[in-house]
Amino acid sequence: MKGNVLIAQSGGPTAAINSSCCGIIQEALKHGEEIDGIYGAVNGILGVLREEMLDLQKEDPATIERLKQTPSSALGSCRYKLTEEEYDRVLEVLPAHNVRYCFFIGGNDTMDTADKVDKLARQRGYELRVMGVPKTVDNDLVATDHCPGYPSAARWLAIAVRDAGLDTKAIYTTDRVKIIETMGRDSGWLTAATALARDKPGDPPHLIYLPEHPFDTERFLVDVKRVYDELGYVVITVCEGLRDKEGRILAESKQAVDVDTFGHAQRGGIADLLCHLIKDRLGIKARFDKPGTVQRVSMMCASEVGLKEAYQAGKAAVEQAVRGKSGYMITLERMPGRKYKCTTGLVELERVANRKRMVPDEFINEDGNDVTGEFLEWLRPLIRPGLTEYAHLKRVFVKKKLG
Amino acid sequence: MKGNVLIAQSGGPTAAINSSCCGIIQEALKHGEEIDGIYGAVNGILGVLREEMLDLQKEDPATIERLKQTPSSALGSCRYKLTEEEYDRVLEVLPAHNVRYCFFIGGNDTMDTADKVDKLARQRGYELRVMGVPKTVDNDLVATDHCPGYPSAARWLAIAVRDAGLDTKAIYTTDRVKIIETMGRDSGWLTAATALARDKPGDPPHLIYLPEHPFDTERFLVDVKRVYDELGYVVITVCEGLRDKEGRILAESKQAVDVDTFGHAQRGGIADLLCHLIKDRLGIKARFDKPGTVQRVSMMCASEVGLKEAYQAGKAAVEQAVRGKSGYMITLERMPGRKYKCTTGLVELERVANRKRMVPDEFINEDGNDVTGEFLEWLRPLIRPGLTEYAHLKRVFVKKKLG
Repeated sequence: MKGNVLIAQSGGPTAAINSSCCGIIQEALKHGEEIDGIYGAVNGILGVLREEMLDLQKEDPATIERLKQTPSSALGSCRYKLTEEEYDRVLEVLPAHNVRYCFFIGGNDTMDTADKVDKLARQRGYELRVMGVPKTVDNDLVATDHCPGYPSAARWLAIAVRDAGLDTKAIYTTDRVKIIETMGRDSGWLTAATALARDKPGDPPHLIYLPEHPFDTERFLVDVKRVYDELGYVVITVCEGLRDKEGRILAESKQAVDVDTFGHAQRGGIADLLCHLIKDRLGIKARFDKPGTVQRVSMMCASEVGLKEAYQAGKAAVEQAVRGKSGYMITLERMPGRKYKCTTGLVELERVANRKRMVPDEFINEDGNDVTGEFLEWLRPLIRPGLTEYAHLKRVFVKKKLG
Repeated sequence: MKGNVLIAQSGGPTAAINSSCCGIIQEALKHGEEIDGIYGAVNGILGVLREEMLDLQKEDPATIERLKQTPSSALGSCRYKLTEEEYDRVLEVLPAHNVRYCFFIGGNDTMDTADKVDKLARQRGYELRVMGVPKTVDNDLVATDHCPGYPSAARWLAIAVRDAGLDTKAIYTTDRVKIIETMGRDSGWLTAATALARDKPGDPPHLIYLPEHPFDTERFLVDVKRVYDELGYVVITVCEGLRDKEGRILAESKQAVDVDTFGHAQRGGIADLLCHLIKDRLGIKARFDKPGTVQRVSMMCASEVGLKEAYQAGKAAVEQAVRGKSGYMITLERMPGRKYKCTTGLVELERVANRKRMVPDEFINEDGNDVTGEFLEWLRPLIRPGLTEYAHLKRVFVKKKLG
């Protein structure tokens, strides 16, 4: 079956999603017997609905190669849940352009869309190969060891928290409690990664709170007070989606929460809220950083391993589609053994669609205020290159003369 | 006069302050005839009051060298205004340790402290050489072309805003208005630097607001609406210290403002406030990023030119002190000519102390919502290496078949 390729990028942009796109394009170019045109949907599935597609073979190969080092979604992205009529429209547009290979790069919502397109094509007897390519900084797709996009965002956060932690440690007279709020719609994978900021025990972050563990305000205040009394400063990382023991989003109580078209709440404000709590209850001034977008998308601290795997996931999707596979998402499979090695695998789209992988219990400590060594062992190989070494003074004091 | 050196780091940590410290130490080591010990005050002037000083000659030379690449203040910092009694104590501690060379690395508050120590030593007949080494990401010291610390923070912001801007541009269905809040106690130098994020006209940031220009809410809303209607998305950078035409801090009206011991207000919340304004008045959902600490301190995107100049400022301070100078701050002097070249100079501490350099009128456009080309020409040589090139697709559309 010979036809055209369509690539769609969906959901939140990342440092790695263009690397996957590059992998798809460069691999597709090798399959001239099966593949004619290579099209890019403008703003994901919206580009299909609107028949807005870019001819990617008109681009300079050097531009395609440079996608590997370009953050955000070069084709444009969207968050959009199709209506039934719109799925019908998709099944008109694809045949009109003889699109026979569809690659959807995105998270669990995207895999749901991909799954529906695959099933509808089968139902209508339109021969189409649909493959999902995982992408999410949230790292919450099931059935894959981790998700492209996550390693670079995790590396960014580890470096940012190490640097901001050194700042809080250094400046003695103000800002003794710092709360850094990370992204994470429902899961705490990104927040957990901030533990990599530590060079040695006692380094920031001192407390890490994930939404997987119900947040208890009173225990939190005890934790903060304990570290403050011991070290004289506290650096805390919290996930935007922290919940109480009834599963309610904590930040919701304070400010209106917007809901996007998939029904996900747009959160914000938990760090601000906790700063006020610390000030009111402990009488200690606390400040927060909310790095926001830059953590998910920036190429500043991209993980080389992460970018390479993102490329491989795109490439593998084309290889599998050309072999006849459809209705699958590419997975990353970590090989057993001491040395980190990762290969790609397949999982049915319907097994991934709309499901979420939370940080498992064995990665969270018993008190729910830190991660475990097991988590760090799992994470470390994804963060390559590792963090650069900073100067650590021995701190030999000059003998006092006045006392 | 032979004696010991004392180095103190003060104010907000930066990517470059340890580079200046390294420059002082490595230069001091060359002057064995004048200099015995090299001490580091722990947490700035507080370390002097407490007689807490590190013997920096006990450190491994490789650790000292690594300071060049280590962010934050390795000696510890503080924000602290001395009382008269405490100045007396300083003039007891320094002679007790035969400190004859004092290097204060910091901003305008620090230069005030340095100036007072210098004058008090003269008054009491204690032979002491006091030199200031400029450091502030705010870039608001007078009499110097720019301040070490600023280039690295400016480079970080330019890259962060470029990446976050690409994110906002890409994701079609949500987050169409993004406000990024930068630091800047009173001046807009950091906010202004975000203009470097643009590869071409029309790129984010579309609107830039500095505290030097009175903020007019109605004009702001007109600006936002115009860009939104034209491009479909808007990226705005604002300084935390934006003021109305009466000179009042805008964010003060919304939340309590803490005041540090120098009487400076600790600001926050302007971006959040403007998001609510846009939603209420224009009916458009807006979101904000507040990167916070990482922008001032991170080594992620450090400017090589900036780190080198920070080192040179430290080195020059020692050279001048050994030659007999006291009561001066090192300045950076930009040489005339097309090719960027910077050398060091001197200015009396009292001319710098407690004064602020605002972004001049010729660097701000007439509408007060952007910077001028003249500013970018001034800034660009400080940001080295420049920003990496990203992939820019030609975007050749596939011909529509359905319409």
